[in-house]
Amino acid sequence: MNFRFVINQLGLLLLVLSAVLLVVDVLFFLTESLLDHDVDPKARAALFVSGLLGGLVGGGLWRFTRSAPRQLGRREAMLLVAMSWLVGAAFAALPFYLWAQLQFTGAAQHPFESYVDCYFEAMSGLSTTGATVLADIEAVPRSLLFWRAFTQWIGGLGIVVVFVAVLPSLGVGGKRLFRVEAPGPTPEGLQPQIRQTARVLLFIYLGLTAAEILALRVAGMPIFDAMCHTFTTLATGGFSTRNASIGAYDSQAIDVVVIVFMILAGVNFAMYFALLRRKHQSIWKDPELRTYVAILVIGSALITLSLAGQPIVTTAGETTGPAAAPAIRHGIFTAVSVATTTGYCTADFDAWPFLAKAVLILMMFIGGSAGSTAGGVKVIRIWIAFKVLLSEIERVFRPQVVRPVRVGSAVIDDELKLATIAYVLGIVLLFTVGSAAVMVLEQWKGDGTCDYTTAASASLACLCTIGPGLAKVGAVENYGWLTPYSKLVLSLLMALGRLEVFAIIVLFTPRFWRGA
Amino acid sequence: MNFRFVINQLGLLLLVLSAVLLVVDVLFFLTESLLDHDVDPKARAALFVSGLLGGLVGGGLWRFTRSAPRQLGRREAMLLVAMSWLVGAAFAALPFYLWAQLQFTGAAQHPFESYVDCYFEAMSGLSTTGATVLADIEAVPRSLLFWRAFTQWIGGLGIVVVFVAVLPSLGVGGKRLFRVEAPGPTPEGLQPQIRQTARVLLFIYLGLTAAEILALRVAGMPIFDAMCHTFTTLATGGFSTRNASIGAYDSQAIDVVVIVFMILAGVNFAMYFALLRRKHQSIWKDPELRTYVAILVIGSALITLSLAGQPIVTTAGETTGPAAAPAIRHGIFTAVSVATTTGYCTADFDAWPFLAKAVLILMMFIGGSAGSTAGGVKVIRIWIAFKVLLSEIERVFRPQVVRPVRVGSAVIDDELKLATIAYVLGIVLLFTVGSAAVMVLEQWKGDGTCDYTTAASASLACLCTIGPGLAKVGAVENYGWLTPYSKLVLSLLMALGRLEVFAIIVLFTPRFWRGA
Repeated sequence: MNFRFVINQLGLLLLVLSAVLLVVDVLFFLTESLLDHDVDPKARAALFVSGLLGGLVGGGLWRFTRSAPRQLGRREAMLLVAMSWLVGAAFAALPFYLWAQLQFTGAAQHPFESYVDCYFEAMSGLSTTGATVLADIEAVPRSLLFWRAFTQWIGGLGIVVVFVAVLPSLGVGGKRLFRVEAPGPTPEGLQPQIRQTARVLLFIYLGLTAAEILALRVAGMPIFDAMCHTFTTLATGGFSTRNASIGAYDSQAIDVVVIVFMILAGVNFAMYFALLRRKHQSIWKDPELRTYVAILVIGSALITLSLAGQPIVTTAGETTGPAAAPAIRHGIFTAVSVATTTGYCTADFDAWPFLAKAVLILMMFIGGSAGSTAGGVKVIRIWIAFKVLLSEIERVFRPQVVRPVRVGSAVIDDELKLATIAYVLGIVLLFTVGSAAVMVLEQWKGDGTCDYTTAASASLACLCTIGPGLAKVGAVENYGWLTPYSKLVLSLLMALGRLEVFAIIVLFTPRFWRGA
Repeated sequence: MNFRFVINQLGLLLLVLSAVLLVVDVLFFLTESLLDHDVDPKARAALFVSGLLGGLVGGGLWRFTRSAPRQLGRREAMLLVAMSWLVGAAFAALPFYLWAQLQFTGAAQHPFESYVDCYFEAMSGLSTTGATVLADIEAVPRSLLFWRAFTQWIGGLGIVVVFVAVLPSLGVGGKRLFRVEAPGPTPEGLQPQIRQTARVLLFIYLGLTAAEILALRVAGMPIFDAMCHTFTTLATGGFSTRNASIGAYDSQAIDVVVIVFMILAGVNFAMYFALLRRKHQSIWKDPELRTYVAILVIGSALITLSLAGQPIVTTAGETTGPAAAPAIRHGIFTAVSVATTTGYCTADFDAWPFLAKAVLILMMFIGGSAGSTAGGVKVIRIWIAFKVLLSEIERVFRPQVVRPVRVGSAVIDDELKLATIAYVLGIVLLFTVGSAAVMVLEQWKGDGTCDYTTAASASLACLCTIGPGLAKVGAVENYGWLTPYSKLVLSLLMALGRLEVFAIIVLFTPRFWRGA
């Protein structure tokens, strides 16, 4: 294992994050008077000190491992990916922590005074989950909220680059089915190819970012909110700058813009490659895209129907009487927000009928498309698992008939079948273990108010990177009240879910560390 | 599809069941004065009429399809197995239903007045589940309780014969791993071989039955109770003749006897073949047996530990103070009862700490050994699935290394890997769908008192053929209050779980019915 190069690259990551922090700091210093910000020198100091510290540590790590051979094998890549999120979150938590230490010196309690809470919030950011420990988001200075939203934007970009450009090129994760239309191998070799793919992805991501900021501005959102929400929409993250999430604006135009960009962020980014190359046909024929759209349509319809004749309580606390318009509006918004694993809320779906919640839980589990910023099991895996189960049923009574399992025109071989089914089962297992762990930890060290629904939905919402769950971690609640132990478990689940389990879980495998 | 022969064999089944009914009826008539029974002519009439009806219908079906070619292919065998349980339960429900129609003509309400409830109870019997609609079991006449217990004995015997003798010989369900030590192919061909294996199994089953009746008598149980509880122990069924289940006797000796025979019933019956042939070595080396014992030991220890310092409420309503002795006694009994999917209770485990309940739920899911009367996913499948998941994790970072997955000395091929993982996932899926269906049906048609825990544990307890679940279907509760719709869903889950899913689910597959 080439540890030195991994450390070198981690140092580089810290340098980049520190640079971003300092830029954010300077940006807020310059625009304070212009944009009517609350001036908060303590938040600015926290950002500055964090940036400085990160720069020093990152620079040092990078400097002293500069001579490492620039070789990134399969295992090094996985270790680097895992450590990027685990160490990245530890660093991204720093501004929150330092701010709270500077700000609260007396009796007032703030979640950010605990480093575990800050780590949870930062991991929730980088993993694009959107679960928060904050009860009063609006009380946090804008510069920190900007950083908080930006962690999601970075996390989303990182995930797309890692899962579309880096890992498939290194042959990690078995078959390359998920890299549908990314550029093939180039004659120049692996590293230039990865770099080129990453560059195109960054370009697409920046394009979408600009488009959404513009669209949100046109829809009437203030520029600061528009930027922050764009960062968290494209990452399907779901951090909001408002306590009532998107519901705070109560604007149909904003709802529509957010819905559109959530859907776009949940599409395999390889589709945008195809679009750039004008291969429209291959896009519409893609089985994952079709299934993804079908799930969104059917899920929205089911939830809207189940809301018929029900009053709806918005996250802003208002009740809209039983009528078609609000049912459709909040039904579609919530369905898309949950299915894309974003987690924005306009209504308190925890109060909805069981059928609506069951559909939401199912969509949480399924998640978005592979190669997107969305989490969950991924549509393509669910699709393959479904087809494999059907073919296994037939094999019971007709073992002699071998019918190939197809996704689109591609035939799924036995290895991929096994890998997919095992992945789905692994997620179910992690969800179960996570729920039980939270429940046990809360009963043991908590205040005894954690029920099964809360523990299970928290585990699922973190593992599938949605954010809000049900009951005491529902749409109008937060994760702040949980014990630090549960928060660490949930942070681990976020990392596991975000990095498709394997990148993290291999770290616990002795064989991963053994041998050359 | 040779429908006529399937109908012929179903007719035979009805004839056998009817004969049993009539024998039970005569037996109770003869022993009424001897054994201090409550004389209940209405129950005897119900048994007699049912026996007569079944005899007529069964005889008719059998008579008019006598000329069918005596060929049983793979698909016919599966159809016959599925219909045996579905139709068998419809018939086994008849005595309960007729008795209630004769008995309750006025204001008094009894669950058996509804045929759906009777069907649920009968399916719970034949599937060896043990879930009951009865709140007051002791109010039911003894002859009917005897029949109720006997349905489990028949169901248990049927399952062992089908899964050890019939299906593996026909090559149903893929690889024959689960038929570890059953007699190999004989020169005389398939049918005599099945018949011979079935005969040995019947012999083993009868031997265990005689042994347990004797042991329970020695431990101090009355003869009627000893017979009924033997029927339901060996089937890992769990129907009791007492409202407080085994807890009613409050006897350590009885607890020990029941524990021993529950464990024996959860062992692969092929082990008893090996024992008969004095192949002791192959028994102790069997990986499933070892894992099964390990699960029982670890599960018992965990539950006992989690009960430390807790008062325990028995099913008889008494509270035993926090002490080691009751924790060990009830901990082990409940662990074994649940892990073997029997479902007898001595204590109200619904009131236990979360850790104990989590372990119980996990053991419900795992179940007993393949080729036993126990339900659940089966130890061997869990073991294989676990090993496959581990090997898949390694394949992520070392795709070039092919390490065979072994169970004992047998290498698991890709086909069996896939079938096993798919099976486990299928059970998880059925459990989820079942829970959601119960929840939706109860919210829609029920009294709104069904919570998630109840719906989920009812679904799991029926699918894995345990019986009692948690909350409102807990150890001291029953299934009588559920809507008829939920009861039908749960009856289907019992059949699915009992027949290893595939035998039932193929009936819903169009391709199963198509072609020769």
